[in-house]
Amino acid sequence: MQHDAPLDLQHAFRRLAGMHADAGEVVTLRSADGSVDRVGYREIAERTARLASALDGLGIVQGDRVATFMWNSHEHTEAYLAIPCMGAVLHTLNLRLFAEQLVYIVNHAEDRVVIIDDTLIPLVAPLVDQLPTVEHWIVVGEGDASALGDGVLRYEELLAEQPGGFSWPRIEDDRQAAALCYTSGTTGNPKGVLYSHRSTLLHSLAILTADSFGICKSDRILPVVPMFHANAWGLVYGAALSGASLIMPGPFMQAGPLTTLMERERCTVAGAVPTIWMDVLRYADEHKPDLSALRVVPCGGAAVPRSLMQEFEERHGVTVCQAWGMTETSPLASVAIPPADAVGEEHWRYRTMQGQIAPLVEVRIVADDGTEQPWDGVSSGEIQVRGQWIASAYYRDDTSADKFDDGWLRTGDVGAITSDGFIAITDRSKDVIKSGGEWVSSVDLENALMGHPGVREAAVIAKPDERFTERPLACIVRDSDVSAQELVDFLEGQVARWWIPDEVAFVDEVPKTSVGKFDKKELRRRLAEDELDDRHAVARPAAKPESSPA
Amino acid sequence: MQHDAPLDLQHAFRRLAGMHADAGEVVTLRSADGSVDRVGYREIAERTARLASALDGLGIVQGDRVATFMWNSHEHTEAYLAIPCMGAVLHTLNLRLFAEQLVYIVNHAEDRVVIIDDTLIPLVAPLVDQLPTVEHWIVVGEGDASALGDGVLRYEELLAEQPGGFSWPRIEDDRQAAALCYTSGTTGNPKGVLYSHRSTLLHSLAILTADSFGICKSDRILPVVPMFHANAWGLVYGAALSGASLIMPGPFMQAGPLTTLMERERCTVAGAVPTIWMDVLRYADEHKPDLSALRVVPCGGAAVPRSLMQEFEERHGVTVCQAWGMTETSPLASVAIPPADAVGEEHWRYRTMQGQIAPLVEVRIVADDGTEQPWDGVSSGEIQVRGQWIASAYYRDDTSADKFDDGWLRTGDVGAITSDGFIAITDRSKDVIKSGGEWVSSVDLENALMGHPGVREAAVIAKPDERFTERPLACIVRDSDVSAQELVDFLEGQVARWWIPDEVAFVDEVPKTSVGKFDKKELRRRLAEDELDDRHAVARPAAKPESSPA
Repeated sequence: MQHDAPLDLQHAFRRLAGMHADAGEVVTLRSADGSVDRVGYREIAERTARLASALDGLGIVQGDRVATFMWNSHEHTEAYLAIPCMGAVLHTLNLRLFAEQLVYIVNHAEDRVVIIDDTLIPLVAPLVDQLPTVEHWIVVGEGDASALGDGVLRYEELLAEQPGGFSWPRIEDDRQAAALCYTSGTTGNPKGVLYSHRSTLLHSLAILTADSFGICKSDRILPVVPMFHANAWGLVYGAALSGASLIMPGPFMQAGPLTTLMERERCTVAGAVPTIWMDVLRYADEHKPDLSALRVVPCGGAAVPRSLMQEFEERHGVTVCQAWGMTETSPLASVAIPPADAVGEEHWRYRTMQGQIAPLVEVRIVADDGTEQPWDGVSSGEIQVRGQWIASAYYRDDTSADKFDDGWLRTGDVGAITSDGFIAITDRSKDVIKSGGEWVSSVDLENALMGHPGVREAAVIAKPDERFTERPLACIVRDSDVSAQELVDFLEGQVARWWIPDEVAFVDEVPKTSVGKFDKKELRRRLAEDELDDRHAVARPAAKPESSPA
Repeated sequence: MQHDAPLDLQHAFRRLAGMHADAGEVVTLRSADGSVDRVGYREIAERTARLASALDGLGIVQGDRVATFMWNSHEHTEAYLAIPCMGAVLHTLNLRLFAEQLVYIVNHAEDRVVIIDDTLIPLVAPLVDQLPTVEHWIVVGEGDASALGDGVLRYEELLAEQPGGFSWPRIEDDRQAAALCYTSGTTGNPKGVLYSHRSTLLHSLAILTADSFGICKSDRILPVVPMFHANAWGLVYGAALSGASLIMPGPFMQAGPLTTLMERERCTVAGAVPTIWMDVLRYADEHKPDLSALRVVPCGGAAVPRSLMQEFEERHGVTVCQAWGMTETSPLASVAIPPADAVGEEHWRYRTMQGQIAPLVEVRIVADDGTEQPWDGVSSGEIQVRGQWIASAYYRDDTSADKFDDGWLRTGDVGAITSDGFIAITDRSKDVIKSGGEWVSSVDLENALMGHPGVREAAVIAKPDERFTERPLACIVRDSDVSAQELVDFLEGQVARWWIPDEVAFVDEVPKTSVGKFDKKELRRRLAEDELDDRHAVARPAAKPESSPA
């Protein structure tokens, strides 16, 4: 039979350090004015060995958790490679967590070492005393680190002190943990998702397939998605495996520096959440950059408005491609590449879904009563996922057994699946709106509203209603002085008439969670406590005789 | 951690039968004039279940070998799916084997059932009495089957008799055998290569990656490579996984029907050995077909002449891409996609190598003295391969332990690896030419000679020589009345001067092995027995002072 080798990340690292050593590089943006650090894969590999050697010297052994608290950079890439390949567990800390969540996570993971960007020290300085498991802080950069107390080491000094090279241990069992990432729900403590070597390597191979991101050695990938989010969608390990280069934005996540970076570095792939791309689109409209090298922009983390995709394509020739997944799914679960023969509206119907189920991933829809639903594009229920890189439990957590069912992850997303395996999500289960006994899709309403040129952001939440139990309320961030009435008139013909909100609230910005998603729980709180004060009742079209509740 | 599902071929089949049911199809060419059978994946899936049900009814249980003796067709596709998915082992029999090899293989594998195309019955009829393990012959087609004796069943009748549907067993261990293919060396008995579910599914995922064949759901794949060769390069299972359609040539392997099929069916991918493409190129030059749908033509099984690739590209806009592998490697081991920044001669240098090592595959070069050689593009030795879909032993064979070394397959190919992981094969170890103590690459000489417009085929073998031990002898099939002297003059400047043969033999055709490769052993026999009678001594350029032996 075949050689029974472990599916481990050392394989990806060996390719980067070997055949791709002179072809690939990591470019890191170091200032908003465009200066970059450029480090070839040969040097990345050498520095990675030094980092592993340094951590080994600090007493890190197989299975120990080593955390990163960093922006996207070549140093973070080195940590991504060194920590799993030495048998330890890479724990990426989310910079945007609330202090108490961060404390909980570091203590729960029992991180022994944290590698931290100097500019981020102020975020953790007040918490240091609450993190007893952390023995060493390794600081990237020259900034003042006194606030971290004792045990501070400098990343570059540490690397320079090493003799060079490292004797990588054999990963005996490829189900050994490689990485750890916590996901913060809106209730309860954050939950840890542990990725194995096997799951991560298979996921890396999957993002190289043509019907997913199609990552290839000629690619120059800009992961705008932070490396503390679901392993930056797997792009770093996918680059190691394929030989693609990585273009890292550092902390410069604004449309201007990102667009300039894409243009100068001839990026071919760039991944980010829709809100970032909305900003980039506005910036690109104004500055007309040359984005001709971009072959695809995978976009996910929230539903991608059709208007965003269409305008990018029409005005800048850039294909924004919706993909779906979450921390628990590594994250690739589906990618919305339409069949080649789907044209016009049919093409866009596919593009605006969450995508076709990826190879090695299984998906089912389960209704409230526990019955599995048919793939007819209509029957709705909770999306459940299972597969080689899909979590089937949380790390050291027995409070969340209800999130999993016999190996299936209960995603909390509600939607349907078409007969050709495209997932269409209508809501988060906790955000669903039920009006007069029927579901209203907040996702569809938001997408339609964001297609209006005067709308920057739209979040639709349920508003208690005496007659219909709930009615949708549109919370809008305006780009122009569009009126509430104009907005609901704009919806006519785009969504079912009875979905159209009878009230619009203008807000200065939509509150976001720590991972940048709309925080609808906070919006509902503001509504309940009467803090949404710029509300406008609007006249909905008169109800005509039709089978609708409103 | 992640859901611990087996990596089995049922997953690929479920995708074909589910999300791809209405999108994909198998088209089978049924006559040289172009009539086809068109069967959608939904029907393929239903028929596959019926075939499994029928085999189950014949008493086939998990682990049993079921053989096929068939051309490429939708029935063969059904066998490809049904047999492994029911837990049995698909044993593809090579139609071109010598009778005694076929008898050996069927008996060695202990095939219980053989599915056979009616047109192929004459090939096995004389052997039936020597195949005691075969209990049933299932005949595809209506042709006379009396020569097969008792136990003959008709494929369509058998399928029609089933109730429909099949209760697929769970594949508990994904290292269970899925398929079996014998490789016939030029010495000793054929050797069986057993593929597991896991190895085959991982291989299928690999051929979907962008830097390999990049198979995607929009593809329409023409596997000219027979399905009895290394699982048709994995294209069938890759199609099931991705949803690509399959266009099957049946027995019509001539340039005319193949070209017409590619044109009419808008094939996007077509895989075959170089000799087929040389015929197609000549045919296309004459008939000017519209091959604009073809995005890539993976080509392997023998070194691909640069002239073939260049002329296809210049005259027909078709990219012929060299790939390398063998039955033992499933077969994908490397694909020759050049870096994007390699242009001109640099581009062609990459294209004419055997390709960059595929993900999840490991390669090393070992010199005669057993030392591993550096990847410098020069240091030469035997290419050895190891990985998830690379055989590490033959099936029920303990005579060939020397073909494997600690999980590494000793390929018998001799060559070098560049620092960026491209394999360049110079010879088969048994075909090497050593002249004056230095290696002469028969592969390079053949490629150069086949670049001459008057040469149809060129095979270079070693000729005993008193002074230099061996000298290369070029055996040429002419397309025009080019002279021997013109041919060697043509080589000047293309290869080292001392490589240039001092003798040319014109032959009517180059003898081929059962898998269509040049049979150099037979050529050497003819040379030894003085049967190459159209030989011409030629004047090589005078030796100038240089460090060459000749």
